[in-house]
Amino acid sequence: MEQTIEVTPQEEAEKLVSARGRGLVMVYTGNGKGKTTAAFGLALRAIGHGASVYVVQFMKGPDRTYGEVEAARKYLGDLLTVVQCGRDEFVDRQRPSPADRELAEEGLELARRAMVTGRYQLVILDEISVAVDFGLLSLAGVLALLDDRPPAVDLLLTGRYAPPELVARADLVSEVREIKHHYRRGIPARPGIEF
Amino acid sequence: MEQTIEVTPQEEAEKLVSARGRGLVMVYTGNGKGKTTAAFGLALRAIGHGASVYVVQFMKGPDRTYGEVEAARKYLGDLLTVVQCGRDEFVDRQRPSPADRELAEEGLELARRAMVTGRYQLVILDEISVAVDFGLLSLAGVLALLDDRPPAVDLLLTGRYAPPELVARADLVSEVREIKHHYRRGIPARPGIEF
Repeated sequence: MEQTIEVTPQEEAEKLVSARGRGLVMVYTGNGKGKTTAAFGLALRAIGHGASVYVVQFMKGPDRTYGEVEAARKYLGDLLTVVQCGRDEFVDRQRPSPADRELAEEGLELARRAMVTGRYQLVILDEISVAVDFGLLSLAGVLALLDDRPPAVDLLLTGRYAPPELVARADLVSEVREIKHHYRRGIPARPGIEF
Repeated sequence: MEQTIEVTPQEEAEKLVSARGRGLVMVYTGNGKGKTTAAFGLALRAIGHGASVYVVQFMKGPDRTYGEVEAARKYLGDLLTVVQCGRDEFVDRQRPSPADRELAEEGLELARRAMVTGRYQLVILDEISVAVDFGLLSLAGVLALLDDRPPAVDLLLTGRYAPPELVARADLVSEVREIKHHYRRGIPARPGIEF
């Protein structure tokens, strides 16, 4: 007769921690340029160590071309999955639409699923702090995601206006400050640089 | 008889500007985590728009594994060339060795050549501000590189301690500030995250 060995989720999680080490919660915030690109650079770094990475982008939709997303799809395949859970249209900060809120909630749920599968070492929630600031997601919902993080998974949350409660929970926080931006001199957004 | 059409370098440069738009000089500085990853993320973004990118890394050598460099070599091939022009050993800030200075000068020369070929839309000089701060490169040498930049090329210079003269010459400057770092809590560097 075959014997079934029961493995608890707790044991599974501990095995992953032994193999990969303990994961971190990281936050990139601030008004300067470089948060999303730093997230994708971190993804590339993790991939170089054999990891698979899952990215949910909030408040970004499929209508615009984002160079980093194009390159990920073309060259990195399954190693870097990018899902966009927003619309490229303007979101009204005072009165976000139910559709915008639904898309954001869907993104949070996708991130949660990716986080708990054990398949991804790094899960990135790009612009999630802006989604919270705009009222598309509740802060409580985001903190609940942190509570459920399997200990071997690295989480990176980006976006300006990171809430203090999130900063308090993070292991690493970098603030990207704008010192100078060519927009202010009237130079338009440049493909390959701004998007 | 065959006719030779003479094209001046100036005309060549203008043709590239018409095709690609005018390039930018960008600086990422500050004491926070995310500058090098932001540089590699920007490279990925540019590649997604069809660009080729050349990276010179100062004060980094071939002895350590850097995830982003591994991933670039494995998945991005000629689209993202990374050259390391330093040693992984400690550099004495008071008395840098002639070997360290030579390697850095070589890096600057490689960046210059990559910049003027017209083959790369984006040239990244990673940690160059630290190389200047440590006395491996003269500030004048770096500013001379900016003077020679063909107008269609984007340049990104990273590293803490960006000199004010460099900031003054840049179109975009982001300062990455450390708000919180797990090192301070005694958590060691994590593969895929710190390198």
